[in-house]
Amino acid sequence: MPQNVRIALDAMGGDHGAAVVVAGAVISLERHPDTEFVMIGSRAELEPLLADRPALRAVSRIVHTDVAVKMDDKPSQALRHGRWKSSMWGAIDAVKKAEADVAISAGNTGALMAMAKFHLKTTAGIGRPAIAALWPTLRGESIVLDVGATIGADAKHLVDLAVMGSAMARVLFDLERPTVGLLNIGVEEVKGLEEVREAGLILRQTRRPDLDYVGFVEGDDIGKGAVDVVVTEGFAGNIALKTAEGTAKQMAGYLRSAMSRTLSARIGYLFARKAFAAVRDKMDPRKVNGGVFLGLNGLVIKSHGAADSEGFAAAVDLGYDMVRYKLRARISEMLGQHAAE
Amino acid sequence: MPQNVRIALDAMGGDHGAAVVVAGAVISLERHPDTEFVMIGSRAELEPLLADRPALRAVSRIVHTDVAVKMDDKPSQALRHGRWKSSMWGAIDAVKKAEADVAISAGNTGALMAMAKFHLKTTAGIGRPAIAALWPTLRGESIVLDVGATIGADAKHLVDLAVMGSAMARVLFDLERPTVGLLNIGVEEVKGLEEVREAGLILRQTRRPDLDYVGFVEGDDIGKGAVDVVVTEGFAGNIALKTAEGTAKQMAGYLRSAMSRTLSARIGYLFARKAFAAVRDKMDPRKVNGGVFLGLNGLVIKSHGAADSEGFAAAVDLGYDMVRYKLRARISEMLGQHAAE
Repeated sequence: MPQNVRIALDAMGGDHGAAVVVAGAVISLERHPDTEFVMIGSRAELEPLLADRPALRAVSRIVHTDVAVKMDDKPSQALRHGRWKSSMWGAIDAVKKAEADVAISAGNTGALMAMAKFHLKTTAGIGRPAIAALWPTLRGESIVLDVGATIGADAKHLVDLAVMGSAMARVLFDLERPTVGLLNIGVEEVKGLEEVREAGLILRQTRRPDLDYVGFVEGDDIGKGAVDVVVTEGFAGNIALKTAEGTAKQMAGYLRSAMSRTLSARIGYLFARKAFAAVRDKMDPRKVNGGVFLGLNGLVIKSHGAADSEGFAAAVDLGYDMVRYKLRARISEMLGQHAAE
Repeated sequence: MPQNVRIALDAMGGDHGAAVVVAGAVISLERHPDTEFVMIGSRAELEPLLADRPALRAVSRIVHTDVAVKMDDKPSQALRHGRWKSSMWGAIDAVKKAEADVAISAGNTGALMAMAKFHLKTTAGIGRPAIAALWPTLRGESIVLDVGATIGADAKHLVDLAVMGSAMARVLFDLERPTVGLLNIGVEEVKGLEEVREAGLILRQTRRPDLDYVGFVEGDDIGKGAVDVVVTEGFAGNIALKTAEGTAKQMAGYLRSAMSRTLSARIGYLFARKAFAAVRDKMDPRKVNGGVFLGLNGLVIKSHGAADSEGFAAAVDLGYDMVRYKLRARISEMLGQHAAE
């Protein structure tokens, strides 16, 4: 029987703090009983929340701190004031000390990345970390990276992103050879940055056995699920992610107002409400919550700050899967293989 | 009484060629009877199409050519083989010779931009052209630019984009002082490219009377309609545009399949079908068809290649508005003002 998966939770991160973190852990623990938690946060807040949840209580250890990184702290501030003592730092520190296999925080992304980089350092051979997002598509889910860890990327970094994203797709989607596309724009001769072109050449020439590079993809290919892994540098990736979120909300807004405007539409809504719920469910950001930090010596997952307990549980599930299916070992393997070529 | 608006149409561009171009012109002419057309294309194809439409026939002149730029021609090929003689070139040439006020083509974007740049040249003071798109939002419409004319932008070019986009917003939305945001990503200290930051400083310091710079916006602010004009360089802008299109299609796809899955949903759909039609209408890319080429000595509008007659008519309407409300003069004014500061 394999070891339990040990998850460190920043219990003071996010818009809702400990209440959502604990409730999320309960949900995820039901799905994966072979989990243990280290919760870093205020003991006075956590004890009463755990008192009602004996199953979670039994597998959880509290590491007390009263210091929380604020959602609007700048990364440098957070690092200056929250290092060594904040709940966010504590979660990362548990991974650093090998007391946990993965750290999960709903706290502020910039601070979390700054602390993770500072404390865990980047993996050998990877210059800069990345954030990978799960993206719901018409075919299921894809992985898009980098969605905002670093701005700009040379060809080597794009290739590294392709490799790390593929390792993640192999682990999460159980694929032998995930398809990979480089995000680009479609006008032939304006066709993209030199580095994107060069990365395409490298990926095409190396013909790796562990990923299937299919070429350039455009923005509208992401939602189609044209490839399992979409690779881009962090600026464009973040813009794409946020724009898609915005468009989904916009359409939901149109639908909501259209469905309440006339009696007939309201009746229609009643008949079709399960169908609407199914669509909402498909686009539900909570279901695919969790940005995975890649390229560091330790696993860190960022939950959406506004996540509710279901959303936070999705981030915990993601952390569980990454550990259980040995994401980091797979990445190292693939990077080693890659470096050898 | 003002002069008629003279519109040059590339009658061989787009996936559907002359049939859609002529049908689109009919629709737009009904809305703006003070229009004249120069149609560049095959006389043998155009004559029979016009024979049925006496009103359009009366205000149209045909300039014959059999040469069409193909949708998959590379810009350099198009320029080599289609210069002087293709229907696309002819439309641009009519603008160059001041025989038309605006050229409209549904042909391939790269070729159209290459020819427009080559023949019309960039406006004094503007180093590189841009493509501006109309974007439907929860508040109405916004202008997003550049959506793919040029990759990368220094601070000056971003400021130029802000000025040109604002001129367009003043013309199209009849605003005195449109709000302008610079597209950026939200993590504080990774906060963007130096050039974006610098452009923000310039826009903040100059306090122009003709635009209201509100600061950085993120991808999800576009769909909200947070600002009238969203400014970004062409790579990220194109990714954003295509990603939004993809997400809208994805949600429409989910809805369609959800609404046909159960009897109850199908009944609901029947009751609510007008509401669905209203939503479709709001997101209808045909209604906001037309990428406006800015920064050239002449107006050129790119219609979507797959546009039907309604879609093409929207592009013609856009061209009409730009001419009628003197977009280019406004841009020059604003650039002059800008240069004087």
